[in-house]
Amino acid sequence: MPPTASSPTPRGSVPRYAEIAADLRRRIVEEDLAPHTLVPSERELSELHGVSRMTARHALTVLANEGYVYRRTPRGTFVAEQRHVFRIGSFSREVERGGKTPAAVVLSAQVGEADAAAATALGLVPGAPVHVVRRRRSADAEAIALETSVFPVALTPHLLEADLTGSLWELLAATYGVVVTTARATLASVVLDDESCRLLDAVAATPGTRLERSAYDADGRCVEFARDVYRSDRAVFEVEADVTR
Amino acid sequence: MPPTASSPTPRGSVPRYAEIAADLRRRIVEEDLAPHTLVPSERELSELHGVSRMTARHALTVLANEGYVYRRTPRGTFVAEQRHVFRIGSFSREVERGGKTPAAVVLSAQVGEADAAAATALGLVPGAPVHVVRRRRSADAEAIALETSVFPVALTPHLLEADLTGSLWELLAATYGVVVTTARATLASVVLDDESCRLLDAVAATPGTRLERSAYDADGRCVEFARDVYRSDRAVFEVEADVTR
Repeated sequence: MPPTASSPTPRGSVPRYAEIAADLRRRIVEEDLAPHTLVPSERELSELHGVSRMTARHALTVLANEGYVYRRTPRGTFVAEQRHVFRIGSFSREVERGGKTPAAVVLSAQVGEADAAAATALGLVPGAPVHVVRRRRSADAEAIALETSVFPVALTPHLLEADLTGSLWELLAATYGVVVTTARATLASVVLDDESCRLLDAVAATPGTRLERSAYDADGRCVEFARDVYRSDRAVFEVEADVTR
Repeated sequence: MPPTASSPTPRGSVPRYAEIAADLRRRIVEEDLAPHTLVPSERELSELHGVSRMTARHALTVLANEGYVYRRTPRGTFVAEQRHVFRIGSFSREVERGGKTPAAVVLSAQVGEADAAAATALGLVPGAPVHVVRRRRSADAEAIALETSVFPVALTPHLLEADLTGSLWELLAATYGVVVTTARATLASVVLDDESCRLLDAVAATPGTRLERSAYDADGRCVEFARDVYRSDRAVFEVEADVTR
């Protein structure tokens, strides 16, 4: 039975493992520990904080789940690479903003039929011909995301003959005069499926973020519908909202 | 070795389990299958699609990881509750927008010291006195999120004596004349720690979304800094961005 809203549940202290995790998280963030630095071992943490090995392991698991550290048995636990901060927009531009070099590997590029979600987003009838481009995106050769972008064939003739390894939004602008000005997305936290993990060089069951995303031009016309998955140990999303609506 | 950007890797078809998952996902979404409806079993899926039980199980695992279905062994696999779509803003308002009743259980409410992240966000010196309110949020009595909100004591005198079970933003406006107009957040996909799972009535290692969030008034002053976790099987986030920046 969940407690009801009217019965506040005063709680004691935060559990020890959470305190230890918070302490280590704070050190990683505030002292700006370099990626791949060794962090204290379970044994060291248990001695330092006077807790059991299990509690120390639990603290490290919390930080590993959050993407702050990674484990390399038997060598130890290390500070993870800082995650890329993405704003909703162009993957290429966001990676460049972080000072890295974006890249795309085309996994498939073909003519398909718009499914219900794509048709609704793009204002097409279901089954209408669309270009479907599936790409693996990376920053400095480190895999981050899989993008599946859907464009109306009528809007993007001969798209599949173009070089699809750069920014598709820049290609839309240069080739078709279509300029994306707004993007909307729904973000969901998921566990990546095996194929996605494989394509993203990730271990099985890596946590990920799934985006369903639409891009609009200045006239409010939807010009791209996309489904993306990001490795959540490599990407976080920064958003801003006017809350006076 | 990851393939390089200049060597497109043409791929064959999507794996069978992913096709089966996509087909079932489409039916759940398009045919609007009611929550808690039984979906086809592994055996039924394997016969229907002519695949192994393992492939059928894999398809169901994908959908369970994404939050579309849940399993109740030995009874079967069922359509999950539709996830709440949150815009970044007031939890209470977003739940009401979905036609449900928001609630809050106060887990703790106390005076604390601003840590580095809170101090930076709120424009305080580290260690400055803050009100820290930790609450469990729910919609129609179903636990969705844990919110830990931090307010400068100077801005919110006697806050801890108020009724903290409603919208804190409404309380800020009514009591202190502080009106939140903008919110910024960083979203990360995580695996929820054991304490969060327990407080949210979730099984261990439930995927979640972690928000670090700041709320601003019309003068651009940060009036709240918060760390939230959401059950990702119950919440997705809808965002919009101007990409012309």
